[in-house]
Amino acid sequence: MSSSPLVNQLIEALRCLPGVGPKSAQRMAYHLLERERQGAENLSSVLARAVKEVGHCEQCRSLSEQAICEICLSSNRDRTTLCIVESPSDVQVIEQSTDYKGLYFVLMGHLSPLDGIGPEEIGLALLAQRLDLGEIREVVLATNFTVEGEATSQYISEMVLSRDITASRIAHGVPVGGELEYVNSTTLSRAFSGRQNF
Amino acid sequence: MSSSPLVNQLIEALRCLPGVGPKSAQRMAYHLLERERQGAENLSSVLARAVKEVGHCEQCRSLSEQAICEICLSSNRDRTTLCIVESPSDVQVIEQSTDYKGLYFVLMGHLSPLDGIGPEEIGLALLAQRLDLGEIREVVLATNFTVEGEATSQYISEMVLSRDITASRIAHGVPVGGELEYVNSTTLSRAFSGRQNF
Repeated sequence: MSSSPLVNQLIEALRCLPGVGPKSAQRMAYHLLERERQGAENLSSVLARAVKEVGHCEQCRSLSEQAICEICLSSNRDRTTLCIVESPSDVQVIEQSTDYKGLYFVLMGHLSPLDGIGPEEIGLALLAQRLDLGEIREVVLATNFTVEGEATSQYISEMVLSRDITASRIAHGVPVGGELEYVNSTTLSRAFSGRQNF
Repeated sequence: MSSSPLVNQLIEALRCLPGVGPKSAQRMAYHLLERERQGAENLSSVLARAVKEVGHCEQCRSLSEQAICEICLSSNRDRTTLCIVESPSDVQVIEQSTDYKGLYFVLMGHLSPLDGIGPEEIGLALLAQRLDLGEIREVVLATNFTVEGEATSQYISEMVLSRDITASRIAHGVPVGGELEYVNSTTLSRAFSGRQNF
């Protein structure tokens, strides 16, 4: 414990950051106060504004400080393709790494009946409305490859197919740079069954 | 990049934390906004208060929101022993790990003539005044075991000895749990020369 109660409070408050334990929180607090007061001030005010202003886009449910987010408003996107992801950070990852140019729909979770999370909770009513508008021609399912993510993807694919819209799932397989020896057996078996011709 | 400019600003602002690169900053921003809004709000306000209110103790130069810090004010401390450290976080580490019960003096750095950091910049005038008061009987030098820390310790020890006050240096040696095989040669040689009788 520091001799300053306020420094102790700051160390405690920094613990809400993911992956930050007591040691890192202590290091961060001293770093901010000894060497980075301007950055700390800026962080404090941006954080307050973000918590207050950032909500969810009414169309895709991604994080946005406006009613409709920039991606949904953009005229440069393919409005016939909709990618379904579990969280807003997945949108960012896909934007950074792929050349996907369609729109998104963020579930903010996955189906998990035991925790009381059903179709309503992940916004599938909103998704159904969207599909019924008739603009979407393909839905790309990009939920995680976990048991819940797979089940959610399965459930949504049925919803989509019943409306005569194409549903696809992003590919399973050996990660780029991955060595066969270290890839788990399920992944390897999916990589074989999903093989593609040259 | 996120589709929300404010989320991007938050990611950028989080980069001022030590050891936080673009990937962790992104993870932190989404974590705070998706799952930890209350913690984020609290962090923002504590951070603002800390930056505004935490200054330096007038006596020991450690971080404190009061003019004189709690350690300097405490009546349970041995007021004849003064431990010299480089930074406020060193005070915290010593308080957490040792049963040292004296007072502290924080240099806020070390002598580094090439960077223009001389005795004035590390508060040695204030230290000299303190020693001249005649209350201190032993000064424990706990600066880092780096070239600069050693030089600083050497310089201060002369200041202390010239006033007929005891000066001591915390021990060099093999760290607890350390195996001789993996300890560097300078440390091992210091461990031998500093050996103590049972």
